[in-house]
Amino acid sequence: MPVNQQILLDNRPQGEATVDNFKLVETATPALQDGEVLVRHHYLSLDPYMRGRMNDSKSYAASQALGEVMIGGTVGEVVESRHPKFQPGDQVVGMGGWQLYSVVDGNAPGMLRKVDTTHVPLSYYLGAVGMPGVTAWYGLVKIIQPKAGETVVVSAATGAVGSAFAALAKARGCRVVGIAGGAEKCAYATGELGFDACIDYKAHPDLKSMAKALKEACPDGIDGYFENVGGYILDAVLLRANAFARVAVCGMIAGYDGQPLPLANPALILINRMKVEGFIVSEHMEVWPEALTELGTLVAQGKLRPRESIAHGLQNAPEAFLGLLKGKNFGKQLVQLV
Amino acid sequence: MPVNQQILLDNRPQGEATVDNFKLVETATPALQDGEVLVRHHYLSLDPYMRGRMNDSKSYAASQALGEVMIGGTVGEVVESRHPKFQPGDQVVGMGGWQLYSVVDGNAPGMLRKVDTTHVPLSYYLGAVGMPGVTAWYGLVKIIQPKAGETVVVSAATGAVGSAFAALAKARGCRVVGIAGGAEKCAYATGELGFDACIDYKAHPDLKSMAKALKEACPDGIDGYFENVGGYILDAVLLRANAFARVAVCGMIAGYDGQPLPLANPALILINRMKVEGFIVSEHMEVWPEALTELGTLVAQGKLRPRESIAHGLQNAPEAFLGLLKGKNFGKQLVQLV
Repeated sequence: MPVNQQILLDNRPQGEATVDNFKLVETATPALQDGEVLVRHHYLSLDPYMRGRMNDSKSYAASQALGEVMIGGTVGEVVESRHPKFQPGDQVVGMGGWQLYSVVDGNAPGMLRKVDTTHVPLSYYLGAVGMPGVTAWYGLVKIIQPKAGETVVVSAATGAVGSAFAALAKARGCRVVGIAGGAEKCAYATGELGFDACIDYKAHPDLKSMAKALKEACPDGIDGYFENVGGYILDAVLLRANAFARVAVCGMIAGYDGQPLPLANPALILINRMKVEGFIVSEHMEVWPEALTELGTLVAQGKLRPRESIAHGLQNAPEAFLGLLKGKNFGKQLVQLV
Repeated sequence: MPVNQQILLDNRPQGEATVDNFKLVETATPALQDGEVLVRHHYLSLDPYMRGRMNDSKSYAASQALGEVMIGGTVGEVVESRHPKFQPGDQVVGMGGWQLYSVVDGNAPGMLRKVDTTHVPLSYYLGAVGMPGVTAWYGLVKIIQPKAGETVVVSAATGAVGSAFAALAKARGCRVVGIAGGAEKCAYATGELGFDACIDYKAHPDLKSMAKALKEACPDGIDGYFENVGGYILDAVLLRANAFARVAVCGMIAGYDGQPLPLANPALILINRMKVEGFIVSEHMEVWPEALTELGTLVAQGKLRPRESIAHGLQNAPEAFLGLLKGKNFGKQLVQLV
């Protein structure tokens, strides 16, 4: 059996996460039992939710246990199989974690899924046609429920979720406004991702400035907001929200490292008769087939062409992950493992 | 025509509202035109929403104009009619405002409604079987959508909305926990209104203490919350909320006088995958018939027997209103005008 490399959560962050929270180890891959499949990972997905798992606090998911392999989505190829449904050479997506190989129970529902790479590159199954894409789909379609002509806004606009959000919202006839960090990302959002406008939060670092920028970018107000960051950007969106606006709360990356960030004026939820709803996409597996079909079609049609930020080698995953938390990535953050 | 007395909004509050914001005037009631009805008001309803109208700021409704009669719900009797649908002696509910008489266009839809006082006292049409009751109904039935066995919490528990909420939630098999100010109100909530438990917020004046009290009163967590007050009570509820909890935001009375009160940890909306939704009941007229039918039936069956706080004489309306904002009322606050 091949030698595996794994990255474990070694200790929990005190405030900001650091590379010292992780540990790289080598282990043998175990011999397969009946029904098991050995997968060699080609790409590992890095996603903001992983930061929440590193804390030992109440969250929507169990904490990542210390000393265990970091959780994470992976795509790769079956290299050995003792399950009739999987053959060596099959391309598969799963939750293999931060390691080179994983052994998967082929009978466990939803743990390993064969994918078709005729029209969709393998790595996209971790992004636009994977969990981030479905996340955008759920927040837009099920919570925001946009009508044609409405204005919708998304933070972290050039990331995996934001770029899928833009394509899905444009397909529904919305005005789509992004919020991203830096002029380069904003130019990419409007030039390549289909955003109608994009606000550089680094140029608008406070509530008043951001609210003014939103007013200019959203002359008809905001009907829907997909929240990835929290903090003063959410406060500014609430100030510009229309009556009956909907906010899908997917992430609050700004508050992951320390003290909770308050919401300045929750009375606006009443004043604007808003709906603010948190969700985690893995609790809504019933929508995945419909969402993946639409997302795959948008990719095949060239309407969703997300950029990828690719780090190389498992040993570089921690640094790439910490960069993601600071917005250093440009598009979907992956680690290539082959 | 009889001489009318009216209370006008004379000037806007700077911070806390005072009696000096109001002015009492006498005017003649105008002669009726064809289609008009003259109503003598028996009771005027005082409600927290009126405080929001006194500010000159963006809210869900237009500001109350200076120099005009304060808005308000009224019940009374038709004393003169030039509309075939209304006869002298008819008992009616409407939005007559803070005055002894009103002239109403009998053709305007929804402006004046005849009511039956066989099983329901006339004043109840301003409370349990009126706007406050329907408010409780909408928040509970349409936003919280409780299942039998769930725990629901309401602040301002012994007020007009809270008491209706308790009866409606008990009818749906919920555990109902109230939050009210003072031991006497709490004893009334559990002894007469059907609450399973009631927390005295004066005995729990900070987040930590309130969260502990909620934990004891809600051993299975909180599935639904009807928000009338805002501030640290909402923060505490979020700390005790179950996954997929729903919050109906009806009022934030704690923040009406000055600076907005922040929400300490909005990330809990995500962590608990909550839905937080603001509403104003006058925008959902489609539910009123169904809601009023249920509320009237609960009253007729003796399952909803709300207390009323009755001030006497129009001149005492401002002081009674200011007392309502401070929780000095006990049950539905009315002003008797006859």
